[in-house]
Amino acid sequence: MNASGPQDNSTPRLGRVSIIGAGQVGTALGMALRTTGPADLETVTLFDRDPDVAEASRGRGAGDELASSLEQAVHADTIVLALPVPEIVKVLDGFGTMVPPGAVVIDTGSAKVAVVEAMRRALAGGVHAIGGHPMAGTERPGPDGADAGLLRDAPFALTPVRDDPVAVEAGRALAVAVGARPVVVEAELHDRTVAITSHLPHLLAFALASVAGRAAGSSSFEPGLASTGYRGATRLAGSDPGMVAGFLAANATSVAGAAASLRDELDRLLAAMEDGPGPLSAALAGARVLAGAMG
Amino acid sequence: MNASGPQDNSTPRLGRVSIIGAGQVGTALGMALRTTGPADLETVTLFDRDPDVAEASRGRGAGDELASSLEQAVHADTIVLALPVPEIVKVLDGFGTMVPPGAVVIDTGSAKVAVVEAMRRALAGGVHAIGGHPMAGTERPGPDGADAGLLRDAPFALTPVRDDPVAVEAGRALAVAVGARPVVVEAELHDRTVAITSHLPHLLAFALASVAGRAAGSSSFEPGLASTGYRGATRLAGSDPGMVAGFLAANATSVAGAAASLRDELDRLLAAMEDGPGPLSAALAGARVLAGAMG
Repeated sequence: MNASGPQDNSTPRLGRVSIIGAGQVGTALGMALRTTGPADLETVTLFDRDPDVAEASRGRGAGDELASSLEQAVHADTIVLALPVPEIVKVLDGFGTMVPPGAVVIDTGSAKVAVVEAMRRALAGGVHAIGGHPMAGTERPGPDGADAGLLRDAPFALTPVRDDPVAVEAGRALAVAVGARPVVVEAELHDRTVAITSHLPHLLAFALASVAGRAAGSSSFEPGLASTGYRGATRLAGSDPGMVAGFLAANATSVAGAAASLRDELDRLLAAMEDGPGPLSAALAGARVLAGAMG
Repeated sequence: MNASGPQDNSTPRLGRVSIIGAGQVGTALGMALRTTGPADLETVTLFDRDPDVAEASRGRGAGDELASSLEQAVHADTIVLALPVPEIVKVLDGFGTMVPPGAVVIDTGSAKVAVVEAMRRALAGGVHAIGGHPMAGTERPGPDGADAGLLRDAPFALTPVRDDPVAVEAGRALAVAVGARPVVVEAELHDRTVAITSHLPHLLAFALASVAGRAAGSSSFEPGLASTGYRGATRLAGSDPGMVAGFLAANATSVAGAAASLRDELDRLLAAMEDGPGPLSAALAGARVLAGAMG
């Protein structure tokens, strides 16, 4: 990887980094990069369609300067697309041809097949493209919700786009530079996995919050009786609905499959519940044994 | 309440407190009581069927001494039944007649109708009985999982058993003594509410952990891609299966109703997901508006 052969076989420098999308994720990445300050980092430029968001992100310390347009932002050595999944695809399709050859393009979307496909069709072969998914965040949207510390030791999925080891190495270098733990994985496998470990939990949190909200509007509910268990189970429902809808819809088939599995499991536990505490306890203990496979 | 009339109308002293069941909840209560040290507290006696658990609980600072039998433990001024719900009912039915008149009996079970009914049938009229549910805990069972600090400002549900204001005041005094926030509520209303805010979240956590565990055993899953979202969503699945089965089975009708509502909501969101990110985002935002009723 670090061979001194032709330019295309050496790991590109971070150089001038552009972060497109200065919300929670983009801000956290910028803050982490500028805090660790890798030797090959020149500047971090921020762009957001909403100038107030961009300014707030710079205020958090996520960037050295602001780009005034997307066209300007894509002229960089490393381009990070930190947007909801449908926006990432739109930016790639609309601006991909403007990315200079030799640049690295990575994203932070939570669904990877749609992004990797867009990267394949929209970016020239000389661009080093790699899908990225830093798996850490808070449920508070925007620059104020950014917490660079959460990236420390968090999984950072890297999904190859083309047969381009340089792109994979550049993704690894970026993940390590922000303190995360790179996990190289095919986009399809990523999407099937996070359908269960992340997307379905988001859907359940919104569904539970909705059920509780409806009940809270009735007379057969005492809102004072919600504690840490409820708050933990609905925390993800604090996430930005547009961002969540973006990754759920982009991974709809796997999410629907995971939801069907959950429904089956729920039905099995509810049937055991009808049989009384003994059989239910055994069923719950069995679920725990299965869950042990998650390590 | 604090009138100086006949003995039965004055708030009883905590006096000699017996905690029956020295697991996580009983240990946390004992630790909190002995740390705050209310003036009317004499001693805290611990009993557990498992002598090692009782000893470990005393080691955490939850009690002054150990009782050698249930018969001995029920001879106290304040008796706290900190057991899984089916065990609470069994102890009341088996030992209720031995409780001295004037004593206060409270429990910590997460389902209250079954407990309140058992208190009504098993305890003499001269015993001040009140259902209790401190809504704070960790997912680590046993004395080692106890964290008295979690009780601070946590809701402590108190469900009246008979027309006995003294019992309610005694319950309030105990809740305040451990740093919690008393919420007096009918047992039926309590059970319908926590079916949604606590019992269903437990069931979902076990179901999700089971689905993930099954998937982790297959080749289409990358276990490295689980992060804070997954751990938060499955945290409650670390709870003791016997304890969870006890309260779920004791509240089966309300839990089944809550699960049916969740399934409907999930189906609605999955249908919106098929319509694409726009409609799904609107549906998720609507769920958030509803959830706002929870405050």
